[in-house]
Amino acid sequence: MSENTYDVIVIGGGISGLSAAKLLVEQGLNPVVLEARDRVGGRTFTVRNKETKWVDLGGAYIGPTQNRILRLAKQYGVQTYKVNEVESLVHYVKGKSYPFKGSFPPMWNPLALMDYNNLWRTMDEMGKEIPREAPWRAPHAEEWDKMTMQQLFDKILWTSAARRFATLFVNVNVTSEPHEVSALWFLWYVKQCGGTMRIFSTTNGGQERKFAGGSSQISEGMHGELGDRVKLQSPVCSIDQTRDLVEVKTVSGETYKGRYVILAIPPLLNMKIHFNPELPPLRNQLISRVPMGSVIKCMVYYRENFWRKKGYCGSMVIDEEESPIGLTLDDTKPDGSMPCIMGFILSRKCRKLCELSKEERKKMICEIYSRVLGTDEALHPAHYEEKNWCEEEYSGGCYTAYFPPGILTQYGKVLREPVERLYFAGTETATEWSGYMEGAVQAGERAAREILCAMGKITPSQIWKPEPESMDVPALPFVTSFWERNLPSVGGFFRFVGVSTMLSLLTATGLVAYRKGLLPRS
Amino acid sequence: MSENTYDVIVIGGGISGLSAAKLLVEQGLNPVVLEARDRVGGRTFTVRNKETKWVDLGGAYIGPTQNRILRLAKQYGVQTYKVNEVESLVHYVKGKSYPFKGSFPPMWNPLALMDYNNLWRTMDEMGKEIPREAPWRAPHAEEWDKMTMQQLFDKILWTSAARRFATLFVNVNVTSEPHEVSALWFLWYVKQCGGTMRIFSTTNGGQERKFAGGSSQISEGMHGELGDRVKLQSPVCSIDQTRDLVEVKTVSGETYKGRYVILAIPPLLNMKIHFNPELPPLRNQLISRVPMGSVIKCMVYYRENFWRKKGYCGSMVIDEEESPIGLTLDDTKPDGSMPCIMGFILSRKCRKLCELSKEERKKMICEIYSRVLGTDEALHPAHYEEKNWCEEEYSGGCYTAYFPPGILTQYGKVLREPVERLYFAGTETATEWSGYMEGAVQAGERAAREILCAMGKITPSQIWKPEPESMDVPALPFVTSFWERNLPSVGGFFRFVGVSTMLSLLTATGLVAYRKGLLPRS
Repeated sequence: MSENTYDVIVIGGGISGLSAAKLLVEQGLNPVVLEARDRVGGRTFTVRNKETKWVDLGGAYIGPTQNRILRLAKQYGVQTYKVNEVESLVHYVKGKSYPFKGSFPPMWNPLALMDYNNLWRTMDEMGKEIPREAPWRAPHAEEWDKMTMQQLFDKILWTSAARRFATLFVNVNVTSEPHEVSALWFLWYVKQCGGTMRIFSTTNGGQERKFAGGSSQISEGMHGELGDRVKLQSPVCSIDQTRDLVEVKTVSGETYKGRYVILAIPPLLNMKIHFNPELPPLRNQLISRVPMGSVIKCMVYYRENFWRKKGYCGSMVIDEEESPIGLTLDDTKPDGSMPCIMGFILSRKCRKLCELSKEERKKMICEIYSRVLGTDEALHPAHYEEKNWCEEEYSGGCYTAYFPPGILTQYGKVLREPVERLYFAGTETATEWSGYMEGAVQAGERAAREILCAMGKITPSQIWKPEPESMDVPALPFVTSFWERNLPSVGGFFRFVGVSTMLSLLTATGLVAYRKGLLPRS
Repeated sequence: MSENTYDVIVIGGGISGLSAAKLLVEQGLNPVVLEARDRVGGRTFTVRNKETKWVDLGGAYIGPTQNRILRLAKQYGVQTYKVNEVESLVHYVKGKSYPFKGSFPPMWNPLALMDYNNLWRTMDEMGKEIPREAPWRAPHAEEWDKMTMQQLFDKILWTSAARRFATLFVNVNVTSEPHEVSALWFLWYVKQCGGTMRIFSTTNGGQERKFAGGSSQISEGMHGELGDRVKLQSPVCSIDQTRDLVEVKTVSGETYKGRYVILAIPPLLNMKIHFNPELPPLRNQLISRVPMGSVIKCMVYYRENFWRKKGYCGSMVIDEEESPIGLTLDDTKPDGSMPCIMGFILSRKCRKLCELSKEERKKMICEIYSRVLGTDEALHPAHYEEKNWCEEEYSGGCYTAYFPPGILTQYGKVLREPVERLYFAGTETATEWSGYMEGAVQAGERAAREILCAMGKITPSQIWKPEPESMDVPALPFVTSFWERNLPSVGGFFRFVGVSTMLSLLTATGLVAYRKGLLPRS
């Protein structure tokens, strides 16, 4: 083909676009990747410097069942290591720190405990009704999509302890507020990650591991393989499908021609492109209805790993409105060097604190760490790194897109529906671990196969491909206990026992269950 | 100045951008207007053909208190005429047509009547708390912004009749669903239009009049005045503020340089532009969180004005899920020619029916008109025009932007906050009749004056300018009756009377009130 003419033009040099291009090259095709930034990796972004060695300012965590990204990592010789969870986690609530083990902080109040147990059970059970690949076809899709998660919480939760933790659960998982997101969408999101335990856990969950050397190495590996096919600093501003070949133009004026196009960018960022002809009405409106979440990822480095010495692993669940950070994880290097705590400034807090200076945020963060860990050592960081993803024009926010109420049922079906010669990738279009690096790979490879299918090289049944389980990072099932399955909800409990006998029973049930160790969720 | 260098580059040749440029020229400055389409007018769009003479496929209605757009119209010699409301309106519900007079269809069931009365009263009273220019500062801003309008309706409404009409009220006014919009935002929207009566009424309200010859004449008048300063087919793809002059580039590669820029486009369409430097974080995220509504405007032309002969003015309020149309108005020309009914396919119905063909929609619409008006004559249209605004890349939807829950309080304050040399117009940034042509003028002129102020030509206190009342279209106050002020809500009523005496009292109150004519709202 002539210069600047390709089989496939892939827009977006993140994990999704690169894995699409990689697969296409392996199938003997001639793709080009147009990346807006001066680097590959998109929402993964590893920075190297002497203070940190390397640090992931973007997507970093992987875990069992994320087999596609693990396969790619292995191919490029990128090792994984476990996020430290040896010592105790801490739950900080009402000004006090409570060390705990397991995935979720325990609840001490028996009412809160029932409420809390019922919350996870209800979310997972509702999730079972929702098809991964078509949540808009769930039996209660319309009803649940008209509700925000806040409304669902108001409906099922009785205690403020459970309500506050439920809010944090939404904040942490999708960097937005319960009142901002559709219940149908959030329940789908948790489900397609494998449920409440899988999504939230460190050990055996989405945060079990990191890539030694940083997650950008995966994209860099693919970039290395693709070589000159990847064009950096090439933000796309228009796509013209009115001629024999699709014409894609960048802001600086270069034109690329291709038989097909893969948009491997968040749906929202389709908005950056001027389309000729215009997109169909539903797609034209979908892309303006799925905003990206709000988060600042903050890494505080210390000279010493003082928390492990105090018996803390570095994971903190911080339930306090005034704290900038909602959740932390140990981010010390696997060899014990560069002691570090990673924390997220989430959603409402991100929007409030993004107007402060970096120094002011650092100070606030160290102060809350000092309170939670009970030591002044936290006040003296050796180094600080942060990344506010809300300011990134070519991400729009992080980690991923969220669906406000009403949108998934009305527009969801066009999320990855091709528009003539345009195909859609990006982690938002995935059906397993959408929102994660894993989803990016699934989506990129699926879009590449859709084009192979359109070219007659494979059959439609070959487009979606299951992934064999990683040998190195096997998944353990989450086993629910008798109590988790059968403990009544607070409402059910009140209906069952008379109010007169309530308090005594409550106390008894709670104490027995706790002492016998029947309640921990891991 | 050298070629392609201007004092102000105005992006968007709708009413807002053109009125900004017009004011700047009048003040001796040298602006240019870049318009993406091959026509001016934006969301106003008058088509001329032999079947219709002229027809407004976009924004068309004006009324009292919209003094700025009336001033502009007068300057260009564009006359207004009253939308026909001489004969009866019709409320179609549960398969039956009920003729009525006034702004809102009456409710016959006494419970529904109390409910309905309480709905308007509550919305208007909540509106009084909300500052037009800063709704995020309302005393209950956070609480109301976390709620959808659906939640507010669920909270205050008791009867399905009131609930269904409340849904239609949201659909008609903001082309979206009650569960999609923030209660704070919607209450603000109604308030800044002058309240529930002003926004919904034909006579004395937002739909009182149209422009004879079509609303595009206003933009065309300004275009005539501005001449070559308006560049059509110039969609902007990038803005660079890193040099002495701001550089604005179009998709086809032309570069314009200016001292200032006015973005006179919906906030969402800022997304079409690549910014250097990137926008500040809150603005970067705001523009992806305010989608445009969904509507198809449909005009059915008939040989005869058969509805007026039957005693109907042409206004229909259609409460039936299967009907494509929710609200109609007579669209016959002021001289009685071109008999026509205008109807809106709104929100959820628009998203469903946009996949049908134009012919199929026409047929469905004629069928419902035939049922509502009780005559087969409606089945035989002479001509049909429609415009689906969801397919317009350079509008994103119509009539205006809506705020999903949580966005107004978190991002509202940056809506019109300048970003260095960028200023923001467009009807979405207005504080009176935002969403309407009137708001477009207010916003355009305000943004122009912000720049005059930045240049030192006027003082900050001169930026916001009240508009004298139009002599031709004076506003009458809406007077509430004793009953409207004092009729209890359904909840209040139940609390007041014992359930035993309920039914008799209800019946009595309703009948007396209705017979004495104490209840009509106009």
